[in-house]
Amino acid sequence: MNIKKIFIVNRGEIAVRIIRSCKVLGIETVLAVSEADIDSLPARLADKTVCIGPANSTKSYLNIPVIITAAKSVGADAIHPGYGFLSEVAELAQNCQDQGLIFIGPKPEHISKMGNKLVARSIAQQCGVPVLPGSEKVASFEEVIQTIEKIGLPIMLKAAAGGGGRGMKIITDYANIKTVFESASAEAKAAFGDGTMYVEKYIPNARHIEVQILGDQHGNVIHLGERDCSTQRRHQKLIEEAPAPNISEKLRQEIREAAVKLAKNISYENAGTVEFIVDQDEQKFYFLEMNTRIQVEHPVTEAITGVDLVQEQINIARGEKLRFTQSDIRFTGHAVECRINAEAPEEGFRPSPGLISKWEMPQGPGVRIDTHCYQGYSVPLFYDSMIAKVIVHGYDRTHAMKRMLVALDEFTVEGIKTTIPFLKEVLQDEEFVSGNVNTRLLEKVMK
Amino acid sequence: MNIKKIFIVNRGEIAVRIIRSCKVLGIETVLAVSEADIDSLPARLADKTVCIGPANSTKSYLNIPVIITAAKSVGADAIHPGYGFLSEVAELAQNCQDQGLIFIGPKPEHISKMGNKLVARSIAQQCGVPVLPGSEKVASFEEVIQTIEKIGLPIMLKAAAGGGGRGMKIITDYANIKTVFESASAEAKAAFGDGTMYVEKYIPNARHIEVQILGDQHGNVIHLGERDCSTQRRHQKLIEEAPAPNISEKLRQEIREAAVKLAKNISYENAGTVEFIVDQDEQKFYFLEMNTRIQVEHPVTEAITGVDLVQEQINIARGEKLRFTQSDIRFTGHAVECRINAEAPEEGFRPSPGLISKWEMPQGPGVRIDTHCYQGYSVPLFYDSMIAKVIVHGYDRTHAMKRMLVALDEFTVEGIKTTIPFLKEVLQDEEFVSGNVNTRLLEKVMK
Repeated sequence: MNIKKIFIVNRGEIAVRIIRSCKVLGIETVLAVSEADIDSLPARLADKTVCIGPANSTKSYLNIPVIITAAKSVGADAIHPGYGFLSEVAELAQNCQDQGLIFIGPKPEHISKMGNKLVARSIAQQCGVPVLPGSEKVASFEEVIQTIEKIGLPIMLKAAAGGGGRGMKIITDYANIKTVFESASAEAKAAFGDGTMYVEKYIPNARHIEVQILGDQHGNVIHLGERDCSTQRRHQKLIEEAPAPNISEKLRQEIREAAVKLAKNISYENAGTVEFIVDQDEQKFYFLEMNTRIQVEHPVTEAITGVDLVQEQINIARGEKLRFTQSDIRFTGHAVECRINAEAPEEGFRPSPGLISKWEMPQGPGVRIDTHCYQGYSVPLFYDSMIAKVIVHGYDRTHAMKRMLVALDEFTVEGIKTTIPFLKEVLQDEEFVSGNVNTRLLEKVMK
Repeated sequence: MNIKKIFIVNRGEIAVRIIRSCKVLGIETVLAVSEADIDSLPARLADKTVCIGPANSTKSYLNIPVIITAAKSVGADAIHPGYGFLSEVAELAQNCQDQGLIFIGPKPEHISKMGNKLVARSIAQQCGVPVLPGSEKVASFEEVIQTIEKIGLPIMLKAAAGGGGRGMKIITDYANIKTVFESASAEAKAAFGDGTMYVEKYIPNARHIEVQILGDQHGNVIHLGERDCSTQRRHQKLIEEAPAPNISEKLRQEIREAAVKLAKNISYENAGTVEFIVDQDEQKFYFLEMNTRIQVEHPVTEAITGVDLVQEQINIARGEKLRFTQSDIRFTGHAVECRINAEAPEEGFRPSPGLISKWEMPQGPGVRIDTHCYQGYSVPLFYDSMIAKVIVHGYDRTHAMKRMLVALDEFTVEGIKTTIPFLKEVLQDEEFVSGNVNTRLLEKVMK
């Protein structure tokens, strides 16, 4: 199938990113914009824009009927959903299929299967990929207690429809389990329209390691190595790196192979990420979830492999065979990404939207910036606070981290507050420098 | 030897470039600036600046006594000369040695040997590296004619002390040889203080291919592959790429090995480039000259090898062994660099200095910009017109060239004229696209 025109249903840096790969492929781009994004950088870079509604994303970037109508009216062959918004909503993929539009992503059934964390967990189990000790659906707090009696404390209470930390609670003792269960389930119901909960063993000093995979429509699946995304604040990734530091080569290979096995098992198509929890102490790994879209942190993989993941997403969606075999993928050096947010770290990471009065970006060898911001741009308050991603590539982890520090030093932003000073502190933290990263590192740095 | 503080005697993008590598290495930087460069971007990025004289470079960037005094007075251990200016003046390297300063470059004798093109030619011959048919020193136009009678027309008349095309004349027939010889010799005398001329066979559809080498103080020499710099305008490189397209692997290996052989023969230290003329039709190569400094186009080599050449220059200068063996150097994909000049292509490439009122740089996967310019910067009229280098890296030549076109499309500069529109034309020229590059390509594009 040929793709001549792509309708991009997203905003910010990922919209810019998708437009660039389309231009390289000679594909026309039409960008869906909300009223708040009419004058954005991606709007200027796209061949055409269509306003799909007001700033409120439920009425624009999340409005499936309007999006489908707009895509068809501009004569697009395909929709690229980016990340966030509708990227993991099976209904959009299904609507595309029904309306003869190519959805640049996996099939609707891949999205719905993996979107339900309990279904995903059982698929992983079926193909022999380790999962954390845990439960099926728990209908009441009593069932939570029964599970705890089987697997012990601490546990993590999770929403089956979950994502982004919502509806997630760590339980370390028997006090208040009823209240915690009910509030978590209510939170999940409110966020996802589904209050189904389940239990997994909680690993305190866990690492979060994920494997990038690509699958084509001809049954070929390859991995592009793993990323370590352990450096998180409240379940939100802040610093990602590739390859994962401080794990044995044996464990690294096992994790990579498990990801490919899972993706092959469901005949997965397009770019996807299989996320694992790694128990640093025991050098064991457990399936966490699969993300069925391009990820924010995909550029660290691009840096160490040289592969343009967005371009390959499009090639796969139009039916091409993978350009690479597994042995074609070579890993070079070490890459790290820092997410720069318009937030005031010293005020509890309060969002800091507004006019950027000065914007000078770092440059140079091994430095890449993905951003939609520029001097004179006003960061709207309606959306995610991420304003830029700084990605650096170096000989090894130490070199990459030094290059990152130099890059962040050079990055001048005035008019709004950013997380740059906080990130510089993390990069100089002794534990972080040693590669001893885990999901609780930032709690310590922030003290 | 330890280096704690480097005195950088240069300006523009290469000063920025050197500062960045110093920061990564944790080395303090002091930048020598002329009065015209006091508020430049490198001046802001350096730890300290010292004004060494007025805008006129003979009184500042070329003033050896002032530079040595300034370097010593700020307590620098080393001098980095960048490219151009004093980078290939043996006297500076010698003065450094005499004054106990580390010169970040080769030894004085390497510079003086290779600076004299006739001496360089004879060294190449001694170690079995092919040179073009030609002459020793020709003292008169009669000796030019005698050489022509031996090797045939066309020939190139060259200045022994030459560089940058000055004092160079192509002779295609016997008319006016006396006048041409005398004017070329006078030009060389004026430019270099030495009117010595020699003759080499002129290859009309020549390609210019150069090999990047690194040599340490312990006798190790490696190459980092070749660059094709055939796309020139009046002997000035405009587009450089790596690896060289459309040559056989056999020829590629022979050229690389010849460069290493030459560098080893003279126990060359630090970064250097061995330039060759390649006769496309006969798949033969001939030694042209050796540049004993970092080159403008070094980033294309950095892109395909992942090596930070400026960092390695510093490591070599402080006595470290090369970090890499030849087999450690792996080549990935294809890289291309476009030099952006503040010139008006439609007005005969007239320089176009002045205030940059708008400056929006391309970004994204595989794109790197080396520049000292920004919105609000005023390009002074005293120096070279290069304002930025755009370097892109892609899967292969076609991919890299597409990425370059997309990047140049995104590059917005207002207030001054630039060569961006001209470069976009070249990138779309049929012969250029086919990889059929040679030093006369641009004459055709410009017609």
